[in-house]
Amino acid sequence: MIPIDNSAIVRDGKVVLLAMDHGLEHGPSDFADVPDRFDPSAVFDIATHDAVTTIAVQKGVAERYYPSFEDDVSLLMKLNGTSNLWMGEPDSAVNCSVETAVDIGADAVGFTVYSGSNHEVEMYEEFRDIHERAREYDLPVVMWSYPRGQGVRNDTAPSTVSYAVRIALELGADVTKVKYPGSVEAMAHAVRCAGDVKVIMSGGSKTAEYEFLSTVEAVMEAGANGLAVGRNVWQREDPIELLDALERIVYEGETADAVLERDHPGG
Amino acid sequence: MIPIDNSAIVRDGKVVLLAMDHGLEHGPSDFADVPDRFDPSAVFDIATHDAVTTIAVQKGVAERYYPSFEDDVSLLMKLNGTSNLWMGEPDSAVNCSVETAVDIGADAVGFTVYSGSNHEVEMYEEFRDIHERAREYDLPVVMWSYPRGQGVRNDTAPSTVSYAVRIALELGADVTKVKYPGSVEAMAHAVRCAGDVKVIMSGGSKTAEYEFLSTVEAVMEAGANGLAVGRNVWQREDPIELLDALERIVYEGETADAVLERDHPGG
Amino acid sequence: MIPIDNSAIVRDGKVVLLAMDHGLEHGPSDFADVPDRFDPSAVFDIATHDAVTTIAVQKGVAERYYPSFEDDVSLLMKLNGTSNLWMGEPDSAVNCSVETAVDIGADAVGFTVYSGSNHEVEMYEEFRDIHERAREYDLPVVMWSYPRGQGVRNDTAPSTVSYAVRIALELGADVTKVKYPGSVEAMAHAVRCAGDVKVIMSGGSKTAEYEFLSTVEAVMEAGANGLAVGRNVWQREDPIELLDALERIVYEGETADAVLERDHPGG
Amino acid sequence: MIPIDNSAIVRDGKVVLLAMDHGLEHGPSDFADVPDRFDPSAVFDIATHDAVTTIAVQKGVAERYYPSFEDDVSLLMKLNGTSNLWMGEPDSAVNCSVETAVDIGADAVGFTVYSGSNHEVEMYEEFRDIHERAREYDLPVVMWSYPRGQGVRNDTAPSTVSYAVRIALELGADVTKVKYPGSVEAMAHAVRCAGDVKVIMSGGSKTAEYEFLSTVEAVMEAGANGLAVGRNVWQREDPIELLDALERIVYEGETADAVLERDHPGG
Amino acid sequence: MIPIDNSAIVRDGKVVLLAMDHGLEHGPSDFADVPDRFDPSAVFDIATHDAVTTIAVQKGVAERYYPSFEDDVSLLMKLNGTSNLWMGEPDSAVNCSVETAVDIGADAVGFTVYSGSNHEVEMYEEFRDIHERAREYDLPVVMWSYPRGQGVRNDTAPSTVSYAVRIALELGADVTKVKYPGSVEAMAHAVRCAGDVKVIMSGGSKTAEYEFLSTVEAVMEAGANGLAVGRNVWQREDPIELLDALERIVYEGETADAVLERDHPGG
Repeated sequence: MIPIDNSAIVRDGKVVLLAMDHGLEHGPSDFADVPDRFDPSAVFDIATHDAVTTIAVQKGVAERYYPSFEDDVSLLMKLNGTSNLWMGEPDSAVNCSVETAVDIGADAVGFTVYSGSNHEVEMYEEFRDIHERAREYDLPVVMWSYPRGQGVRNDTAPSTVSYAVRIALELGADVTKVKYPGSVEAMAHAVRCAGDVKVIMSGGSKTAEYEFLSTVEAVMEAGANGLAVGRNVWQREDPIELLDALERIVYEGETADAVLERDHPGG
Repeated sequence: MIPIDNSAIVRDGKVVLLAMDHGLEHGPSDFADVPDRFDPSAVFDIATHDAVTTIAVQKGVAERYYPSFEDDVSLLMKLNGTSNLWMGEPDSAVNCSVETAVDIGADAVGFTVYSGSNHEVEMYEEFRDIHERAREYDLPVVMWSYPRGQGVRNDTAPSTVSYAVRIALELGADVTKVKYPGSVEAMAHAVRCAGDVKVIMSGGSKTAEYEFLSTVEAVMEAGANGLAVGRNVWQREDPIELLDALERIVYEGETADAVLERDHPGG
Repeated sequence: MIPIDNSAIVRDGKVVLLAMDHGLEHGPSDFADVPDRFDPSAVFDIATHDAVTTIAVQKGVAERYYPSFEDDVSLLMKLNGTSNLWMGEPDSAVNCSVETAVDIGADAVGFTVYSGSNHEVEMYEEFRDIHERAREYDLPVVMWSYPRGQGVRNDTAPSTVSYAVRIALELGADVTKVKYPGSVEAMAHAVRCAGDVKVIMSGGSKTAEYEFLSTVEAVMEAGANGLAVGRNVWQREDPIELLDALERIVYEGETADAVLERDHPGG
Repeated sequence: MIPIDNSAIVRDGKVVLLAMDHGLEHGPSDFADVPDRFDPSAVFDIATHDAVTTIAVQKGVAERYYPSFEDDVSLLMKLNGTSNLWMGEPDSAVNCSVETAVDIGADAVGFTVYSGSNHEVEMYEEFRDIHERAREYDLPVVMWSYPRGQGVRNDTAPSTVSYAVRIALELGADVTKVKYPGSVEAMAHAVRCAGDVKVIMSGGSKTAEYEFLSTVEAVMEAGANGLAVGRNVWQREDPIELLDALERIVYEGETADAVLERDHPGG
Repeated sequence: MIPIDNSAIVRDGKVVLLAMDHGLEHGPSDFADVPDRFDPSAVFDIATHDAVTTIAVQKGVAERYYPSFEDDVSLLMKLNGTSNLWMGEPDSAVNCSVETAVDIGADAVGFTVYSGSNHEVEMYEEFRDIHERAREYDLPVVMWSYPRGQGVRNDTAPSTVSYAVRIALELGADVTKVKYPGSVEAMAHAVRCAGDVKVIMSGGSKTAEYEFLSTVEAVMEAGANGLAVGRNVWQREDPIELLDALERIVYEGETADAVLERDHPGG
């Protein structure tokens, strides 16, 4: 187990993960308002921004597009995923082996776990296999820790999120991606429950710029280690502007107000 | 991963796949109107036409008949399939391993995925295994991407078809065979959602010649890479005439009108 | 894949398979009217008749009794089977591996597939494994192709039987054992649907001699390659007489009338 | 396959199996009336009696206590078993691999099969694995053949018991342990249905001495090869007396009357 | 199988197991009243107390924190576990392989079995694998033997607990952790049913000091080998005081009264 801070997906102890597995999880309609982003190359281009520490994609996308970007982007292979056409109790197919992730050049692997689902036991066991194989290759493991299903009423409740991060610690993740629990205090509590596991916020659907950046500021203030972004970046006409703002909030400790005032001085 | 355009199942970037797995999927009644086609050799003979880039059959047929045609036809081994006697939630048995496909001389492998079915997770995981083993042998992978089952209301809706092609891209297919979504525009949108994955139209049941060729024309106009045909070819008394027409529409860019006027000058 | 006609279970292109797996499938009551046949040796003795090309038994019987008959009888190891105490949706346990069949000296393997059952997908996949391993040992594969279960209304309808033989072809069997579809024409149609796969009729329960032999005559007239017999042979006091009749109908092309008139000249 | 009569679990063609897996199957309450028998050593001690050919226990007991008795007792490792706290359709967990049984010094392996249960197919397949691995080590295989579950109305009916022994023959057992079907005639019929497989009676719960020994006499008169005993031995204050009686009935062909009169001359 | 008394998790034949898998089983709220214990290091520190013979944690916690304590604490890797967000019939995911436990430096492995649950068969079979692999590495196996689920009405009834320990013996555990059955007599009976397996009491939720220590005294008086503690230790402000008391009761045979009077001389 190499120190996670030395990993290619971490910069100064922080993680900004650009997620682009929406084509599988939601379908290509997520790209409809910015149609040049149907082409995965366009999103890989965005991932070359300094603020982004890694891009998370499914195997098919990685295999086909990552070779052109391997010098400029670190790759987090998302190993499981499922379409939203399927409507059963939450589960996720394992679409890539660790060995294939290594062959394609992944710097880390990602895995979703739906604690509380009727598939919890099976998903934990799949995670075990992934985790133990990833350790053989010194690949960091990122857990998308999303309590969901028959056993979960509120997936952003503070107690749910703090349980989610603890599960990541107990099962062996290096980084965990969780929902924002609604306040700095709740996020700080979750960070404390995580022990040495890095906690990053899941970005979610596109929101207004100020609202989004304020939440990022709160996440960083809570002691978390960064965030995952997807639609909040590549659904914008100008993703670079937003990534410049994240650079300042995540790595330089600035506030959302400061960043936006400076950018819009007469605002 | 070798470039798909260099593969034996592609000609000038196009794919015309002659499908003959109907004996398993529908039963031999599909051959009843042209009884000499009960004999798979007769369909393999048709597949020697230049317009056909590959023939797709199940293992039993390939093992027994392909040896006589291996110099003249490229083989796409269809790895899964199921009878229509069984009426459960859509699923498909894996009837051939990649290793056996290689032994029999396959140039590519094909696999059906029913996204939206209660077996989606299992089928994705079977696809993963097939895909990763096929990569070891540099065999292209063709996904029959057919959303179907409890989660799918309309399997030819534009949004369903564009999701279907995207799933093929996300999971790693080189070529995907999908339903025609009803218009050039919807097909062009699907092609865009597919990224670099080749999109071909699934032929479906036998229709009138002009209607069928017009659809093929629309598919090519939409930027797709070809089509799969079965009943529209081998259920006709003269399949050669139809394949000659496909040659002109798919590879030479002619229109259905042009092809049929030229063939029936007084029509 | 060696030519099936060169196999030890075929004589002059024909197969007469003596089946004795009834102890598992039905229980020993099938032997009750001829109690010396409780002893498997007695049935193996019958199988030494020239008309019989192979005997089909389960592993336990083969392991214990075949060593005494291996010079005189060819062995078809029936690899799956189930008791009739169990009353679920049709399925069959895999009771013997191909490797063990080889160790015991099998000349071929047999496998039941219930297409239309909720276990169709699982049984096809088990068949795949059996088939692919059998190929490694050049063992012919005989499929008991019996559509049955939730998806099947009439298991002897001509369309069901022709689908059954086609499934055997599609999945890779060398010989298929199917129900008699009721007429020479329907049987001939099934034979045509089978391509190069050998089709043999399943004998079924004991019937009157003339009725049974007339059906065999019809089967041969339809172009099929023989039959499986069990109760119609070993439930008779004099099985040799019946096997002599089969010799003449199957291999010498005589009619049931001719055979019975010759045997009972004053009848 | 070595001749079963040469095996360490057989004496003069007979088997007297001392069963002590009740701690798992029923719980320790079976030992409550003879509390020194909570200690497995006490039952192993009993098994050193000459009349006993083997002791059947679960892995945990074997691993811990057999080393002290390996020179004096032959070991039959019972490979599956389940608690009676669980109340589902009959099934049994596989608690020991054949390899571990060999490591611990087993002379044979035992396996329960519940034909007629919804788990029949699964249990047959587990039996196949056990059987084929046991053959590699020349270990005899004893089948506890107990039809039970949704498909079975009367588990001691003569037809049920004769089917049970036949299943043992068909699937490859060397010895089968079955319920007593109620009469010498029914037991003799079952023995006939078993072919060369050794048939032993399952002892069941503790009964009066005369009743128990009379049943054993009937079993031997029927041509069976012995019995399994558990509670009828180790639930008695003086198990040696009963084993002395079994010695005379099983091996010396005496009657229960003779044995009891001789022991109780004034009775 | 090395003698359990020579193992690193045993001291003078006794086991005091400090459990800290609550973050997975219950969520981090168990640590809320003593917030510095969110940090696993704080609990590992407590485990360095002489009274503690081993600490039981999940893989993720072990991998990350055990390296700093490996000279001072012996490690019992808990191999399965599940969140309480999931509310199905009792089951537990296998979160760590034996091989990984060995790599991390485990001195023993622990496994929960829910006898009586619909998952009993599956859990027994998972236990078998764990047990047989642990034997290859000479790692002691501790069974959390907790009858629970559809088949169990009262999980602390004396008959349930004595069955629980017997299952541990039958399946091969070296130590078993069970609920306290309510009295010295019932505990003594359970100890007797366990044969040579070491029996330790499961600590359960935090109770008043005198009540807890009295129960420990009863457990030791019953002949058991110690206890597992978790919340009763690390939920107290001063866990050392309690561990000092356990030292005297478990290892020195003192009474709860004596220990508490001596500590609170004026009480």
